[in-house]
Amino acid sequence: MLIPSESGAAMLRPRAAIQTLPSYHPPLGGRNGLRFDFNENTVGCSPQVLERLRQVSPEELARYPEREPVEATVAAFLGITVPELLLTNGVDEAIHLLCETYLEPGDEALIVVPTYSMYRIYVMATGAQVITVPAGKDFHFPTEEVCNRITSRTRLIAIANPNNPTGTVAPQEELLRIIDSAPASAILVDEAYFEFYGSTLLPRCHELPNLFVARTFSKAYGLAGLRIGVLVGHPDQIRAVRRVASPYNVNAMALACLPEALADQAYIQQYVSEVCESRTLLERALEAAGIHFWPSRANFVLARVGSTAFTEQMRRRGILVRNRSSDYGCEGCVRITLGPRKHVDRLLSALQETLAVLGIAQGMSGHETR
Amino acid sequence: MLIPSESGAAMLRPRAAIQTLPSYHPPLGGRNGLRFDFNENTVGCSPQVLERLRQVSPEELARYPEREPVEATVAAFLGITVPELLLTNGVDEAIHLLCETYLEPGDEALIVVPTYSMYRIYVMATGAQVITVPAGKDFHFPTEEVCNRITSRTRLIAIANPNNPTGTVAPQEELLRIIDSAPASAILVDEAYFEFYGSTLLPRCHELPNLFVARTFSKAYGLAGLRIGVLVGHPDQIRAVRRVASPYNVNAMALACLPEALADQAYIQQYVSEVCESRTLLERALEAAGIHFWPSRANFVLARVGSTAFTEQMRRRGILVRNRSSDYGCEGCVRITLGPRKHVDRLLSALQETLAVLGIAQGMSGHETR
Repeated sequence: MLIPSESGAAMLRPRAAIQTLPSYHPPLGGRNGLRFDFNENTVGCSPQVLERLRQVSPEELARYPEREPVEATVAAFLGITVPELLLTNGVDEAIHLLCETYLEPGDEALIVVPTYSMYRIYVMATGAQVITVPAGKDFHFPTEEVCNRITSRTRLIAIANPNNPTGTVAPQEELLRIIDSAPASAILVDEAYFEFYGSTLLPRCHELPNLFVARTFSKAYGLAGLRIGVLVGHPDQIRAVRRVASPYNVNAMALACLPEALADQAYIQQYVSEVCESRTLLERALEAAGIHFWPSRANFVLARVGSTAFTEQMRRRGILVRNRSSDYGCEGCVRITLGPRKHVDRLLSALQETLAVLGIAQGMSGHETR
Repeated sequence: MLIPSESGAAMLRPRAAIQTLPSYHPPLGGRNGLRFDFNENTVGCSPQVLERLRQVSPEELARYPEREPVEATVAAFLGITVPELLLTNGVDEAIHLLCETYLEPGDEALIVVPTYSMYRIYVMATGAQVITVPAGKDFHFPTEEVCNRITSRTRLIAIANPNNPTGTVAPQEELLRIIDSAPASAILVDEAYFEFYGSTLLPRCHELPNLFVARTFSKAYGLAGLRIGVLVGHPDQIRAVRRVASPYNVNAMALACLPEALADQAYIQQYVSEVCESRTLLERALEAAGIHFWPSRANFVLARVGSTAFTEQMRRRGILVRNRSSDYGCEGCVRITLGPRKHVDRLLSALQETLAVLGIAQGMSGHETR
């Protein structure tokens, strides 16, 4: 549309949906400390990955990246066929491409809040309407409410499972009920934290033509810097999503390293097992201090600690955690990422000191429980 | 829209624009030979870049990439301010983001053909209409025809300068005339081959609020594998484009290497100077053989050689070139990328042998001139 400016002259304007789009600016700057704020792996990837990176040749840098051979490796690893997946520039790109493939103005997309913030942004960018369904008590997954909000205009339902920032999960049968109730809608089950949970809908993609499952290599695999995720879905749907993606969306370093990362499953298993032990230790410590938290199936725990002073005190002790107070239902909450054994002692001592300094003792915060 | 399937049941369908979108599948597989087919740098990046890559730590791989500090470095290099640019996952992402920011169904986007194929695909994905303006005789830039096709619905005009696959250029004053004639349209001047040409509109971005200039590090800099490009525009417009981009769109390896690549300008200058010498040698050889070609200002030359047999004969001699016969006006044409001194002898001998085998002698192909 040609819109005259105040002076009457025509000028360039973004689409209406983009003009009102919120900007997402993660607080990445000056992260000096143990990085328990972005759910990253704090010890890093398998040594095999690093070794492969040391062998990168100038030719590999100079060539356009070739995604297909690595897609075959990933398909074999996941036990699916190549037409069922697309490698993406992180899961962010998978979400972006799904929105672009299925949504247009007049459509609706359902998200359960609180959840990962990029779903909302990419939906809004298409001009479709975001329908938010609040989670139930203790962030219980509101299956009934989601089903009630499905209309003939619903074209996307995005669900992180385990959910971020709560660490809570939706049972498989409830997700299947939603998938069944919205056959004309893409259902994205974002399994970014799958490795810490173990339950997955991925094998169901070939029989459920509206189901998509996303996985990332940014969390357990320790490769957030490389930007690599995978979107799995029915071949007919993935074919459409693939058309919108650049053939060169995933960089050559990610493609070189991913097969090495997948090959070293022992490393992942050891890391995940240590993180799950750390999670138990943190949850026990929070319980002992009488702090309300939500039992987590991911590599982080959300706890209601009254967040600003807590975050600052932890930072002074060299531990970065993420204030999630502005998320729906998360007033006074921080999200604490877990690390393996070698990092958990530092976390727990900083926690004890912080609680002492802030005068948060057993039972004191009981009134804060939702 | 809920569309019933043949059985009457609702099913998931992509947006109409995506259902008809052509898929772009570059012929990357099995590239055994000297890679003169994708306009890449065949000797690779500065040794400083490789050295930096050897020092990458597991922490750099595990952290989410932070774009801002490198954006400051690139802004300083380009002599502009940070709000005037956005680093992107290759120029492909810059094109994609521009289309997403400005185009919607009912809008029109102008491209001059033949040109880079991704403009058309990303425009079509938005549901906007692609208006193609054919280049003039000898691929002369059709300024008058472009201006005549600008309407109140024109929202994007994408121009590669130098153009791919022709190597031809549009003079600055003609581009400025188009920019002035379409104030409500984004004008993308894609300067992917800038280093081999030298003329740029980049310094004009701050005063021309509808101008965008894209640059890539995939060509002269030899970093196609890392996926890094930069989009420059007026701060008000870049702010809008930035909202649609993932904060993690550029990977950490690209961000680590780019400052090193920019710092070693001597390497780039030497490489570019050798490629330009090679271009002269190739153009002389084509002229001597009476083969029609278009004088190029990029790192490649388009020549009308009757492409299938030529491409195959060159491949047998270890040289990959790109058949561009299916591009508008390029029947029987191949695009031959140039390399530095150490590679040009192999190219020229393979060319002489191929011309001899195919019986293409001086003057024989004169009738092929457009």
